[in-house]
Amino acid sequence: MFEFDIIKNISSAFKDLNPTNAKGIGDDCAVIPISETESFIVSTDMLNENVHFLKDKISAQELGHKSLAVNLSDLAAMGAQPVASFLSLGLTKDCTEEWINNFIKGYKNLSSEFNVPLLGGDTTRSDNTISINVTVIGRMENSKIKYRSAAEVGDLICVFDKLGNSAAGLNILLNKQNSGKYRELVKIHHNPIPKINEGTLLSEYSEVHAMMDLSDGIDSDLRHILKASGVGAIVNLDSVPVSETLTNYCKECSLNALETAVTSGEEYTLLFSIKPEIFEELKEKLAKDHNKKLVAIGTITKEKEQLEYRLNGKSYNLHQQGFKHFN
Amino acid sequence: MFEFDIIKNISSAFKDLNPTNAKGIGDDCAVIPISETESFIVSTDMLNENVHFLKDKISAQELGHKSLAVNLSDLAAMGAQPVASFLSLGLTKDCTEEWINNFIKGYKNLSSEFNVPLLGGDTTRSDNTISINVTVIGRMENSKIKYRSAAEVGDLICVFDKLGNSAAGLNILLNKQNSGKYRELVKIHHNPIPKINEGTLLSEYSEVHAMMDLSDGIDSDLRHILKASGVGAIVNLDSVPVSETLTNYCKECSLNALETAVTSGEEYTLLFSIKPEIFEELKEKLAKDHNKKLVAIGTITKEKEQLEYRLNGKSYNLHQQGFKHFN
Repeated sequence: MFEFDIIKNISSAFKDLNPTNAKGIGDDCAVIPISETESFIVSTDMLNENVHFLKDKISAQELGHKSLAVNLSDLAAMGAQPVASFLSLGLTKDCTEEWINNFIKGYKNLSSEFNVPLLGGDTTRSDNTISINVTVIGRMENSKIKYRSAAEVGDLICVFDKLGNSAAGLNILLNKQNSGKYRELVKIHHNPIPKINEGTLLSEYSEVHAMMDLSDGIDSDLRHILKASGVGAIVNLDSVPVSETLTNYCKECSLNALETAVTSGEEYTLLFSIKPEIFEELKEKLAKDHNKKLVAIGTITKEKEQLEYRLNGKSYNLHQQGFKHFN
Repeated sequence: MFEFDIIKNISSAFKDLNPTNAKGIGDDCAVIPISETESFIVSTDMLNENVHFLKDKISAQELGHKSLAVNLSDLAAMGAQPVASFLSLGLTKDCTEEWINNFIKGYKNLSSEFNVPLLGGDTTRSDNTISINVTVIGRMENSKIKYRSAAEVGDLICVFDKLGNSAAGLNILLNKQNSGKYRELVKIHHNPIPKINEGTLLSEYSEVHAMMDLSDGIDSDLRHILKASGVGAIVNLDSVPVSETLTNYCKECSLNALETAVTSGEEYTLLFSIKPEIFEELKEKLAKDHNKKLVAIGTITKEKEQLEYRLNGKSYNLHQQGFKHFN
């Protein structure tokens, strides 16, 4: 059984229990209404040693940072501001006091950056491998929540970060490559920055329709938007923003940088669809407030769940698979 | 570093971030205010294979049940009604489809019993040992929340369940004893019933002061109440309710049943202090509504953080240590 099958089984088992006023399994976060106008937004993510990280490759401080970052990224995907986090730490016998304190430092520094109090958790022993679970809670006005299901035909599909760097960092670790001059890519992989501020800005615009965070790569994640919204998409590969470092790295490894950018995950930046009329205004705002360059990489079409790639205006089939977890 | 040291370090690292209007690390649950009158109550607990359970001793269905039960028990300890749960499952390669479905069944059956929707989670791979993390959210009126810090000198210390059965079940597993006629004790250990309904009833009474759930045993847990409330306690061992099965089991193992009942954990029932005047009314109500027998096992004293045991009216020193986790 793969992840999505298990989720499907769980989802169907719980169908009769899910209240009609709360949005459940399926989006980046659950939405629990507080009142007519406001909701709590909740997400939880587990990181396991040898699956999501290699203890000898990531520093304890980076791991503390990343554990919280990937969760905050889910809040960002809905446009929510965090109000609390909860940390469960399953520690092995070889976690030294220094390691634990560095982990806490990384977690705390990111908490401070986004003003997220840690309101609880569980500290316990784990037998062979470290297990970390973080739950984050955000709060926001109902009218501003961004769902995956809100994409409309004619929308521009947008991003504002260069893609594929984190994926390449993962590839270096997976293949035990000597990172050398590409150390920067591994660093990006280990230090994702949740786009809370950008997400909050986007949530202010009713012309921003569907939104989610890129954790599995566009090729996988965009399909969730298409399915939830009952629409299709054309993605112009030539428009996908990639860094020079990624281009050079991919050249050396005989990888296609554009395919790497759309198939590989752990980017933890936002993917969203907008009304074309708002593009210029949003571009200016994102550049001014957050030093980000808004890029339209495609269009939402009426072809249900059809995702078509184009290169130089011609239909294009992907050849590369996304990089997976360590185990 | 032991659990409490790590929590202390985390707690002090986050001091500057914790908002004054939310109660943080230290109680059974975090309290996040929704409005002037209401709060969300949140708790999270991690269960790791070979530490909190042995996969060949507990059925998948029991494990699904227990994963949710220990979390709901924390909500019960504050008097809260659950509104949502979140399940993170780190599964090893030897978790079969049947095992996973039985786990979901156990989790779902308990969810149905207390009408708790599952609103999200994370399903992922774990390398060597299964890791489970559950987060539960409850909702309640601020005025009814029961904290550990509310015990008052003169209060009666109360329980309503026989104690030590679950602990003895753990002891059987820890020592690889042939459970034989004591199979019931192992069953109780694997199938805790969260005292949500009893907790809700107790929350209605302003005369119920401090409350918590018994996860580490009275000897450890009561000290948290004493510390938080700045009081002391006398516990009359002769009043601690124990089952006949436990008495027989302890006799066979040369264990003291009363000491087992107060030193050993995983009981997942409630420990609370009440104004003596309410005892009879509460006793009748608990018997009538929940078929539970209210028992006063001691008194809150003014001796700060002093916990004194008495047997037949005389001061008594405990000789036994509580049973610990598997690893």
